[in-house]
Amino acid sequence: MTSVPPSPRIRVRREPHRGAYDRATIDAVLDATPMCHLAFVQDGQPYAVATLHARVGDTVYVHGSAASRALRTLGGNGDGGLPGCITVSLLDGLVLARSVFEHSVNYRSVMLLGTLIALDSEADKRTALEAFTEAVLPGRWAEARQPNRQELAATTVLALPIEEASAKVRTGGPGDGHGPDAELPIWAGVVPLRRSWGQPEPDPLLPPDVLVPPSVRRLLSAQSPDSRGPR
Amino acid sequence: MTSVPPSPRIRVRREPHRGAYDRATIDAVLDATPMCHLAFVQDGQPYAVATLHARVGDTVYVHGSAASRALRTLGGNGDGGLPGCITVSLLDGLVLARSVFEHSVNYRSVMLLGTLIALDSEADKRTALEAFTEAVLPGRWAEARQPNRQELAATTVLALPIEEASAKVRTGGPGDGHGPDAELPIWAGVVPLRRSWGQPEPDPLLPPDVLVPPSVRRLLSAQSPDSRGPR
Repeated sequence: MTSVPPSPRIRVRREPHRGAYDRATIDAVLDATPMCHLAFVQDGQPYAVATLHARVGDTVYVHGSAASRALRTLGGNGDGGLPGCITVSLLDGLVLARSVFEHSVNYRSVMLLGTLIALDSEADKRTALEAFTEAVLPGRWAEARQPNRQELAATTVLALPIEEASAKVRTGGPGDGHGPDAELPIWAGVVPLRRSWGQPEPDPLLPPDVLVPPSVRRLLSAQSPDSRGPR
Repeated sequence: MTSVPPSPRIRVRREPHRGAYDRATIDAVLDATPMCHLAFVQDGQPYAVATLHARVGDTVYVHGSAASRALRTLGGNGDGGLPGCITVSLLDGLVLARSVFEHSVNYRSVMLLGTLIALDSEADKRTALEAFTEAVLPGRWAEARQPNRQELAATTVLALPIEEASAKVRTGGPGDGHGPDAELPIWAGVVPLRRSWGQPEPDPLLPPDVLVPPSVRRLLSAQSPDSRGPR
């Protein structure tokens, strides 16, 4: 995992001290939640669509129905696809300052630019979907019924290499504790946002003797009550 | 609040039963979190940038530094601006099915398309920023030091009317409880994702006699332990 040198268009320009380009920072954000926003252009109109992603090594995958507009637009027609953007963001808290102007939020966000590549072969799609499933919930691939040929054919998988990438992260308290506003009797600080997995809710159609599987038990046991949560 | 008829480009095409166009559904998602993704195009490249938003009536506002690339690009040069997209999404849980293929997530997402309009006058910006602040944390505008003329000049506010909008929402359990996979002894169900505000963390620079303000106390008291949380 080497640092990715920032291109001019990916470099964080506003609040550059919040920018990071090392893969450890970038990967930690990419891995912190399975939800991303995928941006593409169609007929001059930009779209940002919420979808799932998974990082596997140096690649981020998104997937969906072979009929999806976003995936068809981005994957192209065998001609190498179109420019896209994958952004993964987490809100970590409200930052209340003395002045309205200095109010902010704590957050983590990673943006990846590049051309998404559609996987062609059944074998490549299967491998990617296994990695995808394992990235979202480790152990689940082996627990569940794996995809058959029809299901693989109905699934589009797009890959974006982590080449043009930046992270932007804000942590800590408000910024006006050393300026003239610090004398004002106004409360300032952070209200953190916590995330946690709740108790599993079994499908009512499930036979009662089918127990919560190891993948889910591990997910729940990995979170401490005080953590920001794994997602 | 009337229903917005969907244009062809905003209509939910994949899983159309998850699509909704009524303002009650759309507004509830827009109001559920202050973080959105703002998509724009520059030099043919789409970008999705995480930023804050607030809905005030029939308008969604985003704001930031007057030097922000995204805001300058979208707001245009007095020529009416460029097409943009604001998407607000919340992940609500992992949906585990018997088959990998039927795995999904529960989520809420709203997409708005249109041309963002930059507010020109100091008075309009002040009014919008007050509404913005009150939408993110009701009561905070009156508690904090309000923006002066320099701060207003340094802030760009863009407005997007809620005209071309759709919501896409998935709730409930996995979809393979009635098919042939239902006989497999594989656990299926939902692992919900919970959000909650944690205890306020005062700025260490704050005098100890400045107490947590009513806005924050109300935020914390409004959340029940079992709720999905307000954000």
